[in-house]
Amino acid sequence: MSLTRIAIVNITGYIGAEVARLLCRHPNVKIVSVTGRSEAGKRLGNVMPHLSQIDLTIEAAPGEADLVFSALPHKASAEAIIPLVGKGIKVIDLSADFRLKQAEQYQQWYDHAHPAPGLLEKAVYGIPELHRADVTKAQLVANPGCYPTGAILALAPAVKAGIIKRDIIVDSKSGVSGAGRTPSLTTHFPEVNENVSAYSMDGHRHLPEIVQELQALQPKETLMITFQPHLIPMTRGILSSCYASLVEGKIAVSRQGVAELRQVYRDFYEGETFVKVVDAPPQTKQAWGSNLCLIHPTIDLRTGRLIVISCIDNLIKGGAGQAIQNMNLMLGFPETTGLEALPVYP
Amino acid sequence: MSLTRIAIVNITGYIGAEVARLLCRHPNVKIVSVTGRSEAGKRLGNVMPHLSQIDLTIEAAPGEADLVFSALPHKASAEAIIPLVGKGIKVIDLSADFRLKQAEQYQQWYDHAHPAPGLLEKAVYGIPELHRADVTKAQLVANPGCYPTGAILALAPAVKAGIIKRDIIVDSKSGVSGAGRTPSLTTHFPEVNENVSAYSMDGHRHLPEIVQELQALQPKETLMITFQPHLIPMTRGILSSCYASLVEGKIAVSRQGVAELRQVYRDFYEGETFVKVVDAPPQTKQAWGSNLCLIHPTIDLRTGRLIVISCIDNLIKGGAGQAIQNMNLMLGFPETTGLEALPVYP
Amino acid sequence: MSLTRIAIVNITGYIGAEVARLLCRHPNVKIVSVTGRSEAGKRLGNVMPHLSQIDLTIEAAPGEADLVFSALPHKASAEAIIPLVGKGIKVIDLSADFRLKQAEQYQQWYDHAHPAPGLLEKAVYGIPELHRADVTKAQLVANPGCYPTGAILALAPAVKAGIIKRDIIVDSKSGVSGAGRTPSLTTHFPEVNENVSAYSMDGHRHLPEIVQELQALQPKETLMITFQPHLIPMTRGILSSCYASLVEGKIAVSRQGVAELRQVYRDFYEGETFVKVVDAPPQTKQAWGSNLCLIHPTIDLRTGRLIVISCIDNLIKGGAGQAIQNMNLMLGFPETTGLEALPVYP
Amino acid sequence: MSLTRIAIVNITGYIGAEVARLLCRHPNVKIVSVTGRSEAGKRLGNVMPHLSQIDLTIEAAPGEADLVFSALPHKASAEAIIPLVGKGIKVIDLSADFRLKQAEQYQQWYDHAHPAPGLLEKAVYGIPELHRADVTKAQLVANPGCYPTGAILALAPAVKAGIIKRDIIVDSKSGVSGAGRTPSLTTHFPEVNENVSAYSMDGHRHLPEIVQELQALQPKETLMITFQPHLIPMTRGILSSCYASLVEGKIAVSRQGVAELRQVYRDFYEGETFVKVVDAPPQTKQAWGSNLCLIHPTIDLRTGRLIVISCIDNLIKGGAGQAIQNMNLMLGFPETTGLEALPVYP
Repeated sequence: MSLTRIAIVNITGYIGAEVARLLCRHPNVKIVSVTGRSEAGKRLGNVMPHLSQIDLTIEAAPGEADLVFSALPHKASAEAIIPLVGKGIKVIDLSADFRLKQAEQYQQWYDHAHPAPGLLEKAVYGIPELHRADVTKAQLVANPGCYPTGAILALAPAVKAGIIKRDIIVDSKSGVSGAGRTPSLTTHFPEVNENVSAYSMDGHRHLPEIVQELQALQPKETLMITFQPHLIPMTRGILSSCYASLVEGKIAVSRQGVAELRQVYRDFYEGETFVKVVDAPPQTKQAWGSNLCLIHPTIDLRTGRLIVISCIDNLIKGGAGQAIQNMNLMLGFPETTGLEALPVYP
Repeated sequence: MSLTRIAIVNITGYIGAEVARLLCRHPNVKIVSVTGRSEAGKRLGNVMPHLSQIDLTIEAAPGEADLVFSALPHKASAEAIIPLVGKGIKVIDLSADFRLKQAEQYQQWYDHAHPAPGLLEKAVYGIPELHRADVTKAQLVANPGCYPTGAILALAPAVKAGIIKRDIIVDSKSGVSGAGRTPSLTTHFPEVNENVSAYSMDGHRHLPEIVQELQALQPKETLMITFQPHLIPMTRGILSSCYASLVEGKIAVSRQGVAELRQVYRDFYEGETFVKVVDAPPQTKQAWGSNLCLIHPTIDLRTGRLIVISCIDNLIKGGAGQAIQNMNLMLGFPETTGLEALPVYP
Repeated sequence: MSLTRIAIVNITGYIGAEVARLLCRHPNVKIVSVTGRSEAGKRLGNVMPHLSQIDLTIEAAPGEADLVFSALPHKASAEAIIPLVGKGIKVIDLSADFRLKQAEQYQQWYDHAHPAPGLLEKAVYGIPELHRADVTKAQLVANPGCYPTGAILALAPAVKAGIIKRDIIVDSKSGVSGAGRTPSLTTHFPEVNENVSAYSMDGHRHLPEIVQELQALQPKETLMITFQPHLIPMTRGILSSCYASLVEGKIAVSRQGVAELRQVYRDFYEGETFVKVVDAPPQTKQAWGSNLCLIHPTIDLRTGRLIVISCIDNLIKGGAGQAIQNMNLMLGFPETTGLEALPVYP
Repeated sequence: MSLTRIAIVNITGYIGAEVARLLCRHPNVKIVSVTGRSEAGKRLGNVMPHLSQIDLTIEAAPGEADLVFSALPHKASAEAIIPLVGKGIKVIDLSADFRLKQAEQYQQWYDHAHPAPGLLEKAVYGIPELHRADVTKAQLVANPGCYPTGAILALAPAVKAGIIKRDIIVDSKSGVSGAGRTPSLTTHFPEVNENVSAYSMDGHRHLPEIVQELQALQPKETLMITFQPHLIPMTRGILSSCYASLVEGKIAVSRQGVAELRQVYRDFYEGETFVKVVDAPPQTKQAWGSNLCLIHPTIDLRTGRLIVISCIDNLIKGGAGQAIQNMNLMLGFPETTGLEALPVYP
């Protein structure tokens, strides 16, 4: 069987490198080209020692491939993708460029006109648990942001079932790798260690993704979502704590109601390999290194409020792993191929 | 001038040890007796090397003193305090025993009858910024829990001013020292490192303190508070993110409204040395090692929702430092004596 | 093809759990039985959520199997192994019980008589890079300690080649998972975080293993090895820094000598998949999550002293991974099966 | 009593900021001017929130002062100091510029000619425990490097007493704040966390300081010192492990010898407030936040080798604290003023 040829554009960031690491164990594909402007010309193993078994030199532009992962920053990614799509190549974009369906909304959050508005209609928002059929047929997949993946999966069953009111709080705690590989004072070890902070309090770019996807599940009234991210001293993982009041008369505010709530979630995710509805509050470490999303819905019985905790590895289900899950669908492979690794503990 | 004699009961936990560390730099007091059942008979410096300049042997019971800090676990603390109060000694209780004004509520949350219900009326809840006059006259002060300190200070101005609705979310992130010095799997390094988790999802014992103190500021309607704590991989610090919808017609949902909101907070805390209303989102590191509580109130302009972030060092303003602040009031010393240390950075 | 049946005794520690995690991806074996006294009767997935895809209940004693991994503490492990060996079952012992060839030496370091001296001759010290042929034929393999693995692999080429003098310093820095899963004050998060310490300064039990294996490579003179372990605030990884003076006249104290030295090491490890001689100082993160041992030998040109740095993941090449490498040899599988995972970065 | 006026040049690094933090609690001095080129014109409290009680604006050049701390990088520091010394102002240089007594050696290690060779004779190497009298009379003090402080204090008594041979290994483990406040990939949180590495294997700039100071204590033979630094995932602290063979016939290789050895160290540091010879292996946390250096000398009885462990807070005794200790001597204040803070635990 011939292997599908894969190129990774911008392998020198954490997400690009993680795509490569995971694909090394994928039996149906072969990485044939990797790019990274600042390191072009160097052996991959010299720049990324953990990838030294991939025998490639970093290039300035991708070589011929059947499917391309782009891990470039937004704007640069869309610009690099335009010609690839034109040639009929399948593309998974790990940047934000094709996640928002409205070009105006993109402009509002990213401060420049969309570089390829004509491709927006072609792009599928790549959460397989919500859009599997579309992903399977897609030529261009917009891989979701890390925060939206955890938040959307945590809230989709409740929003879809109409059991919560429209006021929703998403309070997320993220490891530092989500900020990328470029050093800054904010991610300097002595600044992050023994510290926790809230950031982007005027609005984080991942908010419109969360709103777009949840609103689509419940078109009756406008959702009022507050999303507040926090940076905590760890490398990988996002835990999102989601709060919303229960609609009266749907789910009882009782132990019995909690059981019903869990069943709503279990039904929603029936048959999903990567989304687990769990009975104990999950920890990010239980997803660490895997493509799992662990979800724990419960009810604050004193206030009649839904609380949902979700945990992911931000670089896997929140990034590279979900991208490969999308790739598997696009290429007709079993959805879990290459993503079988268990979480690493401790 | 003669020094006030201080005893510390149960110095072998983190809070007791922190009281001792801070008092070493207090010019008006002298630690004359320290206890710790499991280590009785040992030199303090052998058990706690950082305290080796305190030339004392750990005892089984406190010697004669003018004021006693009890850092025993709940129940044991009340039992130890009863005879001290009977002798007229001033006591600051760092356990939960005298924080809740209703003995039935105590029984409900702590699973046993209150050991000293007759003393409840005598006890003052020791947040000086809210109860300074009462603390000054108190013989028995109930030092607040670490989470309640951060949450109450974050929300008191908004609740008092009547600018928020009754549905309130407090999402707190705490360092591990809040769990105490007794080892457990939950606090074992390999389990906490590279991990974040939500816990006490059925209700945390600090919730009734938060409700009691905030409800007292606004008797008109019953507050509906959800408090959700999280454990993050750091030693010291609590960041609390508080969410509530604004009452219409009080504070505008606008930049101007944010300025008005900050002024409400600044007015509330005018003249306070240890509570700072700050214009940038604070980080726990900015309070680390000090008695400060940093508060940043703002408005999510998309949803008209109040967000308040507060940061404290859980062992200082959330424990030993606030206890000494209370002691200063009880003994007539300047309130800041011994608490002048700046935050440690980085 | 029928799968080889595997039992894991004491899966509830970090090493036992790691054997299970890695074997889940091994195509030739099936875990049929797992034990753990304190958790017997519980579903494995409830005790170890990351292993929930292994559909087994924890037992008190191992069921029928073709090969057994014992991850019990020393003494208990030998006692459990005696009957298994008697039945002809292949055993890999992850405890210290069969590592030292002399029962008296065992008694001296472990403070009790050896529980099964008659089996010592049968046991092979399982570093495949040194004892591959013997491991292949063994029924009982003593899996090396984590520190000895890194130290022996770092020094074996130099000792064998006779290029260093007999005075050797091994200064090792270990993550906390090496101390196991049982909580203690030493491994309590607030004690380890922001801290580094030297321990076992009177002699660590891993010293005699290091001496035994290195001395066997160079019988001419008695080696004088100082081994000093340190605990650092991370979960996984051991970096060992080894120092010894060069014998005059063998390797030049020059850039050219460094190249010759590297060649000595490269020749020694030629053909090895898991031991990599690297040109830049390695980091434990470059081995994290993999079975690799990275070795960087160099010369301090000012003093004519050999310095070798080695890095391993203490739970994989220093434990469970090496055990599976040994298993592969004992069962006739390709040596790398199930151990193909790349290091996890970042 | 009028306060001595202090200026801090380059307060925007970790060392400069730490000088300021500590001086805030010093009763005899007043910070009157602070500089920092990139942040000139900003309020100090906006750049460094933990210093917001210092009511100053960051300047481009220092204002009039009685004593200046320079925390500039090497070369820039000497250039800034030349005119200050010319005006008769007392200066404490926290850079490396005046530590090495030989200008040629400086050029060899710092790759450029010394900017002020004429001042070298004037400069005193500021370890008060070794050079107290000279510091007291000095106009210009070269504050030692962080690694040299820990290494020199650990080895000085043994070298001076002539009880060890000339081959010495110093293996040091440092927190990340020692690398300064400028972000880089090396100090990026996801790269340092869960990682340990050796660095500067071709020779670290702190080696010649160590050699210079120890050699001066024992002029008989040339010391052969290998110094190997390591980066570990914590913010503050250096633990140095020092190894050397004992000279035969001086100290017995026995328990009794260990006691004699400790006495040699206790005698050497008799009367010192900040250097403690301790009987149990120390941890960096026991010095964290204080000006202490904890030293534990012992003997590896199997090999007859001296092992000394020393622990400091790299920013205090290894930087700002020692600078203030020097300042106290230069200005005639009690040596411990402003440095009384106990270590922070946990």
